[in-house]
Order: sequence, then structure tokens, then C-alpha cells
Amino acid sequence: MNSIDRLIKIFSEFPGIGPKQARRFVYFLITRNDAYIEEFKNEITELKSDIESCVDCKRYFSQSIQKGKNIIGKKLCSICTDDSRDNTLLMIVSRDIDLDNIEKSHLFNGKYFVLGGLVPILDKEPEKRIRLKDMLSLVSRMLEKGLKEIILGLDANAEGEYTAEIVRNALSSLSEKYKIKISELGRGLSTGTELEYSDPETIKNALKNRG
Amino acid sequence: MNSIDRLIKIFSEFPGIGPKQARRFVYFLITRNDAYIEEFKNEITELKSDIESCVDCKRYFSQSIQKGKNIIGKKLCSICTDDSRDNTLLMIVSRDIDLDNIEKSHLFNGKYFVLGGLVPILDKEPEKRIRLKDMLSLVSRMLEKGLKEIILGLDANAEGEYTAEIVRNALSSLSEKYKIKISELGRGLSTGTELEYSDPETIKNALKNRG
Amino acid sequence: MNSIDRLIKIFSEFPGIGPKQARRFVYFLITRNDAYIEEFKNEITELKSDIESCVDCKRYFSQSIQKGKNIIGKKLCSICTDDSRDNTLLMIVSRDIDLDNIEKSHLFNGKYFVLGGLVPILDKEPEKRIRLKDMLSLVSRMLEKGLKEIILGLDANAEGEYTAEIVRNALSSLSEKYKIKISELGRGLSTGTELEYSDPETIKNALKNRG
Amino acid sequence: MNSIDRLIKIFSEFPGIGPKQARRFVYFLITRNDAYIEEFKNEITELKSDIESCVDCKRYFSQSIQKGKNIIGKKLCSICTDDSRDNTLLMIVSRDIDLDNIEKSHLFNGKYFVLGGLVPILDKEPEKRIRLKDMLSLVSRMLEKGLKEIILGLDANAEGEYTAEIVRNALSSLSEKYKIKISELGRGLSTGTELEYSDPETIKNALKNRG
Repeated sequence: MNSIDRLIKIFSEFPGIGPKQARRFVYFLITRNDAYIEEFKNEITELKSDIESCVDCKRYFSQSIQKGKNIIGKKLCSICTDDSRDNTLLMIVSRDIDLDNIEKSHLFNGKYFVLGGLVPILDKEPEKRIRLKDMLSLVSRMLEKGLKEIILGLDANAEGEYTAEIVRNALSSLSEKYKIKISELGRGLSTGTELEYSDPETIKNALKNRG
Repeated sequence: MNSIDRLIKIFSEFPGIGPKQARRFVYFLITRNDAYIEEFKNEITELKSDIESCVDCKRYFSQSIQKGKNIIGKKLCSICTDDSRDNTLLMIVSRDIDLDNIEKSHLFNGKYFVLGGLVPILDKEPEKRIRLKDMLSLVSRMLEKGLKEIILGLDANAEGEYTAEIVRNALSSLSEKYKIKISELGRGLSTGTELEYSDPETIKNALKNRG
Repeated sequence: MNSIDRLIKIFSEFPGIGPKQARRFVYFLITRNDAYIEEFKNEITELKSDIESCVDCKRYFSQSIQKGKNIIGKKLCSICTDDSRDNTLLMIVSRDIDLDNIEKSHLFNGKYFVLGGLVPILDKEPEKRIRLKDMLSLVSRMLEKGLKEIILGLDANAEGEYTAEIVRNALSSLSEKYKIKISELGRGLSTGTELEYSDPETIKNALKNRG
Repeated sequence: MNSIDRLIKIFSEFPGIGPKQARRFVYFLITRNDAYIEEFKNEITELKSDIESCVDCKRYFSQSIQKGKNIIGKKLCSICTDDSRDNTLLMIVSRDIDLDNIEKSHLFNGKYFVLGGLVPILDKEPEKRIRLKDMLSLVSRMLEKGLKEIILGLDANAEGEYTAEIVRNALSSLSEKYKIKISELGRGLSTGTELEYSDPETIKNALKNRG
């Protein structure tokens, strides 16, 4: 296997990329000049040295931007260190990319925790798939700051629902003891949904959540 | 224009059908035998003589099936004459096809009213697009039977929202006077929605309707 | 089953139509006025009484338009009776819709024969699927008028190739005896094809037919 | 802009990649371990140092694999140095990826020249878009080895046809003087094409190239 084929193989592992598009990526890189390639490699290096997983919410963030704000010896992201955010609300999401999308909407002002994935249905060892321990640890620490509600911000599909169940179980004793409300994102008609094509599950939720 | 082209022209007006598929329909009919064609034409004739618009909800229904149940001189559909349905709840939908889909889910046991369409945004004469008068008349009659809530069961898009506004305005004096609640189908994550791809409107509703 | 459901069932058999679109067709018809429905039914009746299968090429054509030109007692379409068309060339196509598309291009001035379908691979009784006898009969009659070449105008897929083989076999003794050339439509790059995505079969033909 | 956003920006320039998928790539890299990232960067470095543009055909090839075969001081790819290939045939393609696809089919045994792109319609300086000079130089050298035919292996679309015209013009004096045939890949029905949906251009070519 030559250098072209080896790089095609690597790009083929990227999310959503098949061998044909991987090949186009490789020829794209071949025809870039040296400065471009250097910048590309530098940015990859930079990413790995700059990006840190936040001690609290576990999301990945850029240290260089955070530097000034960080408490010495503890690496926290800009959301976790933002005093203007609401410490009574914690949203649990599966991936950084979900958190990014919610942040972009500017509609949520609480804190987050990133599970690191979803649990496939029937998976017997969810603690190997998602960060349940870290989640419990953060929730414990947030209790002191007045945490009142945990929102499960998970995909509205089978994996999301199975993961929600596992997270609820993991949180049950803490939430009962400290009277923490556990809520889920509202189900119903999402933007653009036409009634003619709605599935029964969505109709059920739209009726239940009417108001 | 010959008979093939004339029928292509008619089929091209059917919802979602372009001239290419219309042509395939015509050749499909040409190659059917006489019995098939007779049955097809009979069913069309039957449809027009059998189908009646319900006096109350305005939906189209088959008279032949209803015959036994109908009060003489008043044509009512099987839902409007069904005593087991909840007279305190009325759902207002835009089209018969929406009503059919909700009925198929077996999740709603109240009554319906079919507006006959949606009002395009900025349309100045909504009463020409939707059956506002008939709606008010039905609501008045249902007040005597204990109507408590009107659910606006409209598409979650711009036309649906504009139509909801017009319907609310038309109902406002009656609903205030008789303390009728006017609700809308819940918005939020519909089945299958992934957070990564959710629009801000859906995130806003999913947060608002969490529970 | 009521009249709505019965007509949905019929429309669901139309090419490319599922039950959801069939339902939309039925509601579309319900909301048309009586004049529209009458015209629709009349055109269907008209189609069946007006459309005749051409004695020679077997395609379906409108008699009313042809009337003046027809030799009494023999029903021939406008192409088969057109003296300006080239009697030395015969194109064999599978369906009327293929013939229509080729005619629309104004690129072929010979005669046609419509097989009435394609033969599924491994089908043991091709004579029940396609009009082989009628084809041989037409070819025999065209020999007297100077037929020199038969073009197999069939789809470039497995069924088309299998049908071509069967047609070739059926024609073999006639074509050998009378030195009739049997050709097939050229294979190669169709409009819009990009080399990057071409399959080996297409590359092979494009190389073979280069010029 | 932090390191995540900077790398998203770079990936967004990759062929066919928008900002959403670029973001997924970045999170994919963040969650890889150090060994993976090192290998990825090494392969990119390797690619740039290993890949050379062939002196003759201009395609990009891996030097490490070619090393043994190369004539000292002249960098030629495995196809250009392969004595079993036919020196009387030269195919001119626009991009390496087209050459790769044709090679994969094992249907062409001549030589290649890679133009490096296609010329956009109405572009006034084609020599800045494609390697016309290098092409003429290779053709001149191949004349001595018995070159007889140049095949224009370009996409069957407007840009491909415009580029073919420019290449023909550039080659005209050489081809006339030395009686070199210039051919184009055959046009017609590509695999899977159905006659019902064929455009007039394809029908025209399929008729012309029938056989």
C-alpha cells in the first residue's frame, strides 16, 4: 500500500466518509502547496495540545482562550467558569456537538454535562459507554450550589430513550434524597412537521404537551 | 390534442404528479382490461354520490356506511354521531387527511372540525380560504354540550401558525365569554429528532415543554 | 371498505403510487366539482374507445386523429402510415413510452415495433411477455418494402440485454436469409456522465465505440 | 477563533464538506488517541514527500514504490515506465481520479496524460487551467515511439466538451502533420440507462454509435 492508499484508508474512517470521497481528499491535499499542508498539520497538533476535557462538564475546550480565567491547577471550560450561568439547572447531553448546537441557540443558560455518547439498546455495560461516574460526581458538587433540576437533553430516538433510562436510574437515589427534579426535553411537533405525516408517538406527545 | 394527451393533462393536475408520471398512468389505463376501467369509473362515480360533507365537522364521509345511524334529514359522520366521544374537546384541523392520520393513531377521543385548508401568509380574506363561519357555528352548538377546550391541530410551519392566529382571533370573543380554553399541539422534539440538527425554534419549544 | 378506501386501493395500483399519495388523489377528486369529475370520467371512456393498438407496430394511438388517413378496415397509426418515413429501418422498443421519448427527439425517421414489455431474466416463456409473433409478422411484411436494418432499442440494463438476446434469436433465421443487419443502440458515456464515477461496463463501451 | 474553529475552517475547504461535517471531523480527531493523530500527521507528511508528479503523464505517484524502476534523475510513474503498455495509444484525462477509475477497470493498456482539470466555458486563458504545453511536449516525444491515436477521455458534460475542443485545437497541427488520429470516448447509453428517461443528446449518440 502506498502513501496515497494509506491516507485514503485513514480518511475512510472519518465520520460519513467512504473510499471515493477519501480519495478526493487525498488528491485535494496533494495539490495544496507546502504552506497549506504545514498549516493543516500545525492545526492538528495545536488541537491536540490546546484542547482539554473540562474537569466539570467533560466537554472539549480550547485552553489558550481560557487561560486567563482558569483557576490554577484546575482546567475548566468557559461555561463552567461563567458566573452568570444558572447553577440550579444542569443539562445532560450525549456529545459536544449537541452542546454546541444548543449553545448556538442562546436559549439555555444553565450548566451542562457531556456523557460522551449514547448507550446502544441492550448494551449491558453502559458505564463503559458513557461517563456515569463523572456525572454523579458533578451532580454531587452542584448540589452545594443549589442544583434544582437536571434536564436530559438526549436524541428523540431509541438510543436516546434507552440512555435516558440509564441516566435516570443512576441519578435516582441522589435525586430522591435531595429532591432534584429530572426532566426531559419536550416532545411534540418539531418545526416544519406536517400533521399528515406525523407518527403516532409524535401525535401522542403533541397532545400531551399541548398548551 | 388526442385522448392520450388530454388525459395526461388531467393527471398532471393531481397532487404531486408531473407530465412524465401522468403519461405512465395513461399507458397503465390503456393496458387494463374493460372490467378494470369500468370498476375504476364506477368507483369515481360512487365516490361523488356516496361522499357527503358532514354537517358538523365538514369532513367528507361515506353515506352508505353511515346510513343506519343518520338522523333523518341531517347528514352527520360517524365521529360526530359517536356518543362515546368526548364532547368537551374539539380539535380544529386543516384537512381531512390530517384528521385521518390522527384517527389512525387512536390517541384522540374528542370531536373535530375541518377548516378545509390553511391560510397563506398575508392573505387578506381568510374567510374565503377556511370555513370560519361553520367553525363558529359548530363551536356555539358544542357550548351547550359542555365544550371546554379547543385544540388547534395545525401544521408546525409558517402557514399553520398564521392560520392558528386567525382561528384564535375568530374564536376570541366566544372563548372569553364561555371560558373555553384554546390550546395548541405541543411543540418539541418529534420522533427521530437528533439534537445536533435541531433548529433553535425546536430547541426553544423542547426546553419550554420539558417535563 | 367504503368508497374512499376502495378508490385508494385502485390508485395504489397505479405505477409509482403508494397508499399515502393514493389517499391524496381521492381527497383531490372529492373536492373537485361535478363538471371536473364528468370530464375525467369521459376522458377515461374516450381513451378506451378512441385508443387502438396499431396493426403493424402495436403501439397505442388515437383513432379520432387518424381517421382520415386510415385504409378502410385496417387500423394503422400515424407513423406506420407516414410515407415519408424510412422503411429500411425498424426500431424495436419495449414500451410505448420509450417510443414516445424517441419520437420527441426527432432523431429517428424509421419505423417501430413495440414489444409490450421486457423479459425478466430466467423467464422461460418469453412469448407470453413480449409480442414475438407479431414482430416476426411485421418484419416479414417489411422485407418486401426493403427492410435493411433492425435496431434493438432496449434499456441498457440486465432485462434489456436479456430481451435483446431473445429478440435476436427469434430474428436469426429471417435476418440470415434476407441479410438484415441487427444492431443495438450504442453504449458509452450518456450525457452528464463523469469518468470518475463510470462503471467498467460503460468504460469498456466508451473505449470500443470511440471515434 | 480557537483551535477547534480554525480546524473546522480548514476541513470546510475539503471537497464536498460543509461546516457541520467539518465540525464532526474535528470532534472525531479530538477523541482519537495520540498514536492515531501521530500516524495521521505522519501520513500527510509522507504523502507530500513521497508523492511526485510524473515527468511524462503528470499524474501523482508514490516514489517509494517506484524507486527501483526509476531512471536516475528522471521521475516517472509505474505506467509511464511499463514496457508492456501500448505506446501507440495516449488517453488524455482531466484528473488523476479519472485515470485511477479507468485503471481500475483494466480495460485500457495505452499511456495517459493528466491535464490537471477542465476548462470552464468561456474561460479565455485555458493554458492557465490545464497543462497544454506539457501535453504537447509528451505527444512530441511519443511520436518517436509510434503514437497513432490520442483518445480524449473527458467528462460527457459541457466543460468536458469545451475542454476537448481546446485540446483538439492545441493538437491540430501535430496531428495533421504526423497523421495522428484524435478520438473521443463513445457516447451512448451508459449502464442502467432507460430509454424512457434518455435525453435527446444521448438518443442521438446511441443511434449514431449503434452497431
